[in-house]
Amino acid sequence: MEAKRIAAERAVDDVRDGMIVGLGTGSTAYYAIQRLGRLVQQGLSIQAIATSLQSEQLATQLGIPLVSFSEMTELDLTIDGADEVDSAFNLIKGGGGALLREKIVAAASKQLTIVVDEHKVVRQLGKFALPVEIVKFGYEATIRKLFQLGCEPILRARDGELYVTDNGNYIVDCSFNQIAAPVELHRELNLIPGVVDNGLFVGMTKKVIVGYDNGDVQVLES
Amino acid sequence: MEAKRIAAERAVDDVRDGMIVGLGTGSTAYYAIQRLGRLVQQGLSIQAIATSLQSEQLATQLGIPLVSFSEMTELDLTIDGADEVDSAFNLIKGGGGALLREKIVAAASKQLTIVVDEHKVVRQLGKFALPVEIVKFGYEATIRKLFQLGCEPILRARDGELYVTDNGNYIVDCSFNQIAAPVELHRELNLIPGVVDNGLFVGMTKKVIVGYDNGDVQVLES
Repeated sequence: MEAKRIAAERAVDDVRDGMIVGLGTGSTAYYAIQRLGRLVQQGLSIQAIATSLQSEQLATQLGIPLVSFSEMTELDLTIDGADEVDSAFNLIKGGGGALLREKIVAAASKQLTIVVDEHKVVRQLGKFALPVEIVKFGYEATIRKLFQLGCEPILRARDGELYVTDNGNYIVDCSFNQIAAPVELHRELNLIPGVVDNGLFVGMTKKVIVGYDNGDVQVLES
Repeated sequence: MEAKRIAAERAVDDVRDGMIVGLGTGSTAYYAIQRLGRLVQQGLSIQAIATSLQSEQLATQLGIPLVSFSEMTELDLTIDGADEVDSAFNLIKGGGGALLREKIVAAASKQLTIVVDEHKVVRQLGKFALPVEIVKFGYEATIRKLFQLGCEPILRARDGELYVTDNGNYIVDCSFNQIAAPVELHRELNLIPGVVDNGLFVGMTKKVIVGYDNGDVQVLES
């Protein structure tokens, strides 16, 4: 956890006065938001857009001013975690279920910084099951199409009930084991009617900060 | 209207005993469902999946047995209308707002028959504003991205309130005027985070039935 914290705090170094900052979701984002809160208390002037209720509440507690997309449609920098990162900076995200909001915020940002611990860095994506957000209507037919793509699809449940995202959709965790062509898979998935989006983030980040168990931090830029 | 009715009834000629039939939405589908109802009363044995509450209610009134995707994930034939059809059988659908369910059902069908009146047949798609279904979160940022694709995007409203689909999303009507490359546009749109799906149906139908004002019906097959 210490590795993740140090790396997340390093990502905040890029935040400047006047910026609109996107706040990710999850344990990594937590550390980044904590540090942003301390900087705001010391006088840093930023506005933020959160990718989940959880991050929104944390930001509010820490006194970070929040804005919404009705006030601005472009952000300067978003800081978020990932479940897997490959050497081409393709990502799998969505273990926490917020992939769609995270992707919308990332796509609206000039820059996306991804923070991970060393165990998330992989040679090839796919060991982590890829989360795919699908609409409720006809979900059985949509899952059939996911299966036909060659994965083992599992409809996500929590506490004995189907998991529903903030957008009112289901999540299917698709075990591909190996994802040899992330760009093509990302496209194929999003062309399936019923698929809202998927956890592959391709070509979206140019900066990955890796925290090592020994406390080292490595900043990778493409 | 007479042209549409005759063409819609013609589409029903392909329905056979034992089939799972997808019921479209709108005025064309209305005529097809009416005829299916009469045939069921005369002994035709089919089961149907509806693309809207409206079509579901009509089918129920007429005694057409309905099934859901939990019982079957593949249909034999879906009959539906369209807002525009070009000579390559690319379609614009979604004027009525049911594009996503219509596309999910069509994609799960072995065959999709499209019924239109002659005024819907165009040389090039795009005079009809393309409906795009988007999630509520960050819709302002998503609309900005639609605008950057070169269209005039208008968030659909009805009776002074934003229109919400059966899936809890918004619809943006995107005036492109001319859509020179429907396949590419369809892909580009669905890769925008926040876009759930769009009204372009490409490569989904091989049979278009056209009703003419003079009462003629033309069956086009690719």
